[in-house]
Amino acid sequence: KNILIVPGDGIGQEVTEVGKNVLVKIAEKFGHEFIYDEALMGHVAIEATGNPLPDETLEKMRKSDAILFGAVGHPKYDNDPTAKVRPEQGLLKMRKELGLYANLRPIKLFDELLGASSIKPEILKGSDILFFRELTGDIYFGEKGRKNDNNTAYDIAEYSRYEVERIGRKAFEAARTRGKRLMSVDKANVLETSRLWREVIQAIAPEYPDVTVEHQFVDSAAMLLIKDPRRFDVVVTANLFGDILTDEASQIAGSMGMLASASVGDSTGVYEPIHGSAHDITGKGIANPLASVLSAALLLDISFGLKEESDAIISAVDKLLKDGFRTKDIADASTPAHLLLNTQSAG
Amino acid sequence: KNILIVPGDGIGQEVTEVGKNVLVKIAEKFGHEFIYDEALMGHVAIEATGNPLPDETLEKMRKSDAILFGAVGHPKYDNDPTAKVRPEQGLLKMRKELGLYANLRPIKLFDELLGASSIKPEILKGSDILFFRELTGDIYFGEKGRKNDNNTAYDIAEYSRYEVERIGRKAFEAARTRGKRLMSVDKANVLETSRLWREVIQAIAPEYPDVTVEHQFVDSAAMLLIKDPRRFDVVVTANLFGDILTDEASQIAGSMGMLASASVGDSTGVYEPIHGSAHDITGKGIANPLASVLSAALLLDISFGLKEESDAIISAVDKLLKDGFRTKDIADASTPAHLLLNTQSAG
Ligand SMILES: CC(C)[C@H](C(=O)O)[C@@H](O)C(=O)O
Ligand SMILES: CC(C)[C@H](C(=O)O)[C@@H](O)C(=O)O
Repeated sequence: KNILIVPGDGIGQEVTEVGKNVLVKIAEKFGHEFIYDEALMGHVAIEATGNPLPDETLEKMRKSDAILFGAVGHPKYDNDPTAKVRPEQGLLKMRKELGLYANLRPIKLFDELLGASSIKPEILKGSDILFFRELTGDIYFGEKGRKNDNNTAYDIAEYSRYEVERIGRKAFEAARTRGKRLMSVDKANVLETSRLWREVIQAIAPEYPDVTVEHQFVDSAAMLLIKDPRRFDVVVTANLFGDILTDEASQIAGSMGMLASASVGDSTGVYEPIHGSAHDITGKGIANPLASVLSAALLLDISFGLKEESDAIISAVDKLLKDGFRTKDIADASTPAHLLLNTQSAG
Repeated sequence: KNILIVPGDGIGQEVTEVGKNVLVKIAEKFGHEFIYDEALMGHVAIEATGNPLPDETLEKMRKSDAILFGAVGHPKYDNDPTAKVRPEQGLLKMRKELGLYANLRPIKLFDELLGASSIKPEILKGSDILFFRELTGDIYFGEKGRKNDNNTAYDIAEYSRYEVERIGRKAFEAARTRGKRLMSVDKANVLETSRLWREVIQAIAPEYPDVTVEHQFVDSAAMLLIKDPRRFDVVVTANLFGDILTDEASQIAGSMGMLASASVGDSTGVYEPIHGSAHDITGKGIANPLASVLSAALLLDISFGLKEESDAIISAVDKLLKDGFRTKDIADASTPAHLLLNTQSAG
């Protein structure tokens, strides 16, 4: 099995190294042979080649069996809205080129971190949410540009029935194996894309009679997520809404630093933390590598079908937390200094 | 002064009655003469006239000095994504016709409700946020429709420099009178409208050297709002992002039932709760009328410049809460039955 490592920018470099080390250890322990390669993407790729997703990287991606990805981004571009070449273009192009239309974001709270969240433990306890974020459509990929002498900007959001149906089915199927509840999130009282979205979900729902479907407007869902996270089981939503809601939902798990994601679709799957490149903490050794470690676990489970190996990683993370080890984002005043991890020592 | 009362649908009817009663009491107490009229909008207007915003209502709106509004919406339309006439069209048309481009949503936590939120009190304490949501542009008002034989839906998001600048200036000016911090929320790493948004905010910032500006991506802002609400002072953002973030932020105030909003712009201001028509609790007398009461307070302050009268309402709400009165949404196990309000008795 070939695994391509794409650390990207900022803390992507630090955390992906830890994620890869875990894969190496697991292969040793369970007697697998994984072959690793590495490739550039994002700001580091722009610096090296002028292109945020060089052809060489894309080719390596297509040839690999799974990709462990870090993050892309750089404040330089964020502060220059007129920049023509941007790290994020590489990310979006990868998603489109590899047909990664389904982004799975499990929001699972480790018992040990029940107190780490800003939300009350009695509200959180028992929360377990799986997001299906559509990843290759919506306002991310429609035509965009300027008009009226550069005085007006526009972005086109677009969805086809086919696009909604394929992510919808994935979500229904997952709901079947879990709590049998699916929440579809849209803004059907305003958006035409959302009305199509709702039509399609309603149309396929009868094929999954064992799953209870609830439709929520995105504003209401953003509120309910904090008010009553246990109301959520599987959530399916459009690209932009999924982006916003899953970042918000990270607070349920205590920290963005704990959340892994899987992007799957037509071919090779990509596994990555939901956090970004976080240049403000880059190089300090304080980034939480567990999102990358848990991404490695998702990779083994989803792309390789190695459930036992995947569970071994999750148990190891659980034990690490039970033993009291913490990175800064999930530490509190009571964490003793010798249990305060940094990315280096966590490896 | 002429005040138009537009209760709209569902609990809009119940809560607006209470809001109006408070205006009547205040006028008596402070010796003002307000003249009231009433008009239909939303589902009730569709039932009566076929039009969610009848011409007669719009005319009355234009002639009034301020509008106290309830909510519009009905599950019937939510569950039928193909409906051609919808209550929300009336709301959007009102916003556009009256030029209500600035939607102010203050998120203020009454001390007494510090425990009512799902967020920990120590995270919340001292939070005080003022949102400026742009209200007449973005994906709400661009062209939308179907193509490819009804198999593809699209919505166009659009912003002009002028539109961003006028809401931006309002937000900067408000920040000056408060904590002097402005957060502008966009998705400039993906959207062209957001890049224009950021350009404009950056361009006018030097005119407000006393205000510190921070740019956040909407996903990150959705996360920070829960993690660290005190980081926020004044927030300025586009229509769709504002819709999502303010509903989410309602959890800071303990309940959506506590939050008022003011929509202002070219002419008559509209004052309304941020909650919707909530048909699930309509007619039960359990709706929290305080968002409408606080909307009346905003009306007196912003449209009529009656600060003392406005403050009197806010103090009354504070006293009501201190005396232990609660509607169901903000009650807890310790609330005695005789202090549990319903809309009728609160009037
Ligand atoms: C970096 C950015 C373009 C990206 C997105 O919005 O999809 C990120 O926020 C994510 O969620 O993966
Ligand atoms: C009812 C709906 C169209 C409306 C909106 O999205 O603007 C509501 O959610 C609001 O926030 O006033």
